[in-house]
Amino acid sequence: MDLTELRTPCVLVDHPRVERNIERMQAAADAHGRRLRPHVKTHKSPELARVQLGRGATGICCAKLGEAEVFADAGVADIRLPYPLHPVNADRVLKLLDRTHLSFIVDHPDVARGWSEAMTRAGRVVDVLVKVDVGFHRCGIDPRAAGAAEFVAGVAALPGLRLRGLLSHAGHGYAAGSEAEAEAIARAEAELLNTLADQAEAIGVPREEISVGATPTARFSLQQRGITELRPGNYIYFDRTQVGLGSAAWDECALTVLARVVSRPAVDRVILDSGSKTLTNDLARGFVNQPGYGVVLDGLDVSAPDDNLLIERLSEEHANVRVTGGTCALKPGDLVRIVPNHSCVVSNLVDAVWLVNGHEVVDCLEIVARGRIT
Amino acid sequence: MDLTELRTPCVLVDHPRVERNIERMQAAADAHGRRLRPHVKTHKSPELARVQLGRGATGICCAKLGEAEVFADAGVADIRLPYPLHPVNADRVLKLLDRTHLSFIVDHPDVARGWSEAMTRAGRVVDVLVKVDVGFHRCGIDPRAAGAAEFVAGVAALPGLRLRGLLSHAGHGYAAGSEAEAEAIARAEAELLNTLADQAEAIGVPREEISVGATPTARFSLQQRGITELRPGNYIYFDRTQVGLGSAAWDECALTVLARVVSRPAVDRVILDSGSKTLTNDLARGFVNQPGYGVVLDGLDVSAPDDNLLIERLSEEHANVRVTGGTCALKPGDLVRIVPNHSCVVSNLVDAVWLVNGHEVVDCLEIVARGRIT
Repeated sequence: MDLTELRTPCVLVDHPRVERNIERMQAAADAHGRRLRPHVKTHKSPELARVQLGRGATGICCAKLGEAEVFADAGVADIRLPYPLHPVNADRVLKLLDRTHLSFIVDHPDVARGWSEAMTRAGRVVDVLVKVDVGFHRCGIDPRAAGAAEFVAGVAALPGLRLRGLLSHAGHGYAAGSEAEAEAIARAEAELLNTLADQAEAIGVPREEISVGATPTARFSLQQRGITELRPGNYIYFDRTQVGLGSAAWDECALTVLARVVSRPAVDRVILDSGSKTLTNDLARGFVNQPGYGVVLDGLDVSAPDDNLLIERLSEEHANVRVTGGTCALKPGDLVRIVPNHSCVVSNLVDAVWLVNGHEVVDCLEIVARGRIT
Repeated sequence: MDLTELRTPCVLVDHPRVERNIERMQAAADAHGRRLRPHVKTHKSPELARVQLGRGATGICCAKLGEAEVFADAGVADIRLPYPLHPVNADRVLKLLDRTHLSFIVDHPDVARGWSEAMTRAGRVVDVLVKVDVGFHRCGIDPRAAGAAEFVAGVAALPGLRLRGLLSHAGHGYAAGSEAEAEAIARAEAELLNTLADQAEAIGVPREEISVGATPTARFSLQQRGITELRPGNYIYFDRTQVGLGSAAWDECALTVLARVVSRPAVDRVILDSGSKTLTNDLARGFVNQPGYGVVLDGLDVSAPDDNLLIERLSEEHANVRVTGGTCALKPGDLVRIVPNHSCVVSNLVDAVWLVNGHEVVDCLEIVARGRIT
């Protein structure tokens, strides 16, 4: 089937680009002797996880237990949740431990004790990593605060927990203003983690894993001393934000939204059938200010934006596109392809994506782990 | 079951409030002698549509054919799509016409001709309304442009189409700066529609329906001359935006997100397990500037915001809440309830919501039409 025959809007995933993106990231990790553990929140597909594992990934990351349950059911043997699970979920964790190697993060003494008690009660041991805040200021202990190394040692000493190392997420890399700034963030992250690992070692905690994860800083983290594992997710598809951050080129963006012109009410206005229920209201990030809710490509077979078109407003089921310059021949019924601002959130909105090779639709890929929020 | 036993995050729908919201809007429409045709995009649930129809609604609105297919399967006999369907969908429309009374909008001569040809070819007739742009500048013909009435007459003359009237959506009511401005928008909308209906009547098109739809202007549209039908959707749940626009009070907001504290890394920072995959990055609208991605209520049984808490940033699976003043006793494991900025988009993210009455979970309601984007 040709992609022009698909119902719109829908999500297209370019199969050769996905293969290439997976291979390149794995090759980079291999060349630097680091383990790659892709975050599957970007694709939410066991089929694509198997491709990543087949190329050499050491395991996967999931965002929530609900995602981990899907991937464990699909036979993935090593799943890490870089998420501060609360012990109220002990029943689900215990079930998962029966069928996969699960690890997760802790960043709070009460929570660590809660897990220790739950695991001890069940006669089990679970792998944990200490989450370290390296500047994103979301979760994690402050590595510069008094008692940081002691917290690590305290977790290591708790029965029922097996401390595997330190883990961080440099989410502030998405707000970097330049390549140099992104590189500086990756360097500072590694320094903070190495220093804390040294301090913990000095009070008896053996150095083990140091895991970092974020696509914008991944290429710089590879070169940092001490890092054992990388957990990027977005690199499998990339998106407009990653192009804006210099992490990808347009012709590496593997996920696009196929949309149709449904109204053409003015010469400077085109209405598409892809609204926030497809593209989301997530804004683009990157080194330069980028208005618009994704970019319309300059034709169905072109990997560059049509600079005359700005997606200036989304309703749930409409995109208002403004023709900012020149003329625009688009008329009702015409198709366009859009690179979204953020591909991970687009995956979460659809039950399936279409795998394409050029114009040929090669497969329908079910997004099995869509909407697993708990 | 008590709501504190639910897995988090999840979506709660207060059943008594839903019943009351439905009854009040129906009573207001009845009192003014207008037909009420609720937009079901807000709840996407055939079960709730049946409650609306049982109270006196004349039919429902859906956003896309995929939603209409779900509600037609559920036995809803009258479905209107205030959406500019393209004739590429003729096969689906013809199938729907076999099992429900379907109508939709047209705003472009090529599209109207395309539908006329498709319906004539199939030996069928479909009901259409002309979409009129009353200031939102999304779809619709410009009613003040030369040829507007002639466009209406042209549609009325096309074989295969049965013109039922005019339809508009005052989406710019969401950007009103005051009650007075919202009322002025409803008045101007009615004036534009009545004038166009008069002009069309003068060239031989009988006056029939004049349909308007938007929750923020609904209470003012009720009082305008000539309006035959109202199509609000959000009123069944309301949300923070509607409170901001004066359309609802906090204790009318029926949809909340139940979330759990998962990290407490600093005295001024609380991390919840409800991210953009639950709350979305939609911003609040209303008469005053309202930062934050929803509001945390001041306890599980309180219908007023905790003004010391600001949801200042969302990741996909985390909410960063800043403690802006006072102290905050929230600790990992604690539960909070959040009124989202926009309830319609929250419904679209979950497979099911929990119907609650106070703390009691009374039912699990499947969101059957979630994600029907085509």
